Amino acid sequence: MKENGRSDPADLFAVLAAGLVAHLGVVVDGHPMVVPTVYGYDTERIFLHGSVASRSLTGAGQEVCVTVTVLDGLILARSVFEHGVNYRSAMIYGIPRPVTDPDELLHGLRLLTEHAAPGQWDYARRPSRKELAATRLLALPLAEASVKISDGDPSDGDGPDAALGLWAGRLPVVSTWGSPAPDPLLPPGIEAPPHIARRTGERAN
Amino acid sequence: MKENGRSDPADLFAVLAAGLVAHLGVVVDGHPMVVPTVYGYDTERIFLHGSVASRSLTGAGQEVCVTVTVLDGLILARSVFEHGVNYRSAMIYGIPRPVTDPDELLHGLRLLTEHAAPGQWDYARRPSRKELAATRLLALPLAEASVKISDGDPSDGDGPDAALGLWAGRLPVVSTWGSPAPDPLLPPGIEAPPHIARRTGERAN
Repeated sequence: MKENGRSDPADLFAVLAAGLVAHLGVVVDGHPMVVPTVYGYDTERIFLHGSVASRSLTGAGQEVCVTVTVLDGLILARSVFEHGVNYRSAMIYGIPRPVTDPDELLHGLRLLTEHAAPGQWDYARRPSRKELAATRLLALPLAEASVKISDGDPSDGDGPDAALGLWAGRLPVVSTWGSPAPDPLLPPGIEAPPHIARRTGERAN
Repeated sequence: MKENGRSDPADLFAVLAAGLVAHLGVVVDGHPMVVPTVYGYDTERIFLHGSVASRSLTGAGQEVCVTVTVLDGLILARSVFEHGVNYRSAMIYGIPRPVTDPDELLHGLRLLTEHAAPGQWDYARRPSRKELAATRLLALPLAEASVKISDGDPSDGDGPDAALGLWAGRLPVVSTWGSPAPDPLLPPGIEAPPHIARRTGERAN
């Protein structure tokens, strides 16, 4: 697998921009636990949502590893041994901080919301004071991060297996947004707003 | 978020069938680490590939958590607070075993290959004895697994926020296979075989 570590912060932000779900790794009573969670980020930190994670972590001062992976496709080589995947992945390490300040909770929730659904923060009803108090967010600095990007062709095209005459190449996988499906309880006549409707068919990663 | 734990093994196998990448959580010198890896599975165990993982784990007898998550879409509610995601996720816990027996290595590699690219095991050149010896696989029993599936509509359609008159619903996200891209080193005249070519446009999850 042609896998390259990257040290340019732009690569980290590109992976964070492309991903939708992060996998949060924590150690609970000595046992590793990996939970999926949505996220948002600014230039300094990643904000994570999720009651499971928060329950395990709030106030614990424990290290976590947050991994965001975007799968770009398969590398189909002439030999099984040279098969691989093309992907972009970011791992962020550190000790997260529970967000408790109402302004920072708002900031974090806005980033989370806008990352998954740009435009929703201005469209939907924003959190009340009570809802904010019930929101569990974690903030993790982006200072310790490692990015790996694999973007390659099969590596056996100039070796002895080339003589097998087999097809080899990449098989891409692409995530796209589907058509919005209205809530069954929605009264007739309310159309999906442009910031939602125009995503149909657009790449999600 | 309408999130349901599932205990039917069929749900576990459905998540494993739909996913392509697993996130493997390990504890290395007390630090959590989450690495993406491809996988295969049979009725008893999941097989994981990946040198990083194997290096940390081989022979260590350490517990891991393997999480496979498939994102199905966003739940866009009338209020930001009720936003969520629809997803299917499986967490598998246990102590993995390095696979060393050549027959089991072949079995595991076949499952891995066929999970990502059905048909490749019979099409591509199978591993030599030397390649098998260089293959790092881990086997983890499926005995301890937990499955969560969230498949819901916004939950604020019958509350006070319904009066806001805002659109609400689901925004699906779908992964599909793209067109195979031939290796630049491939001689002209070798077409992608049917088991690859026919996937174009098919759902990947």
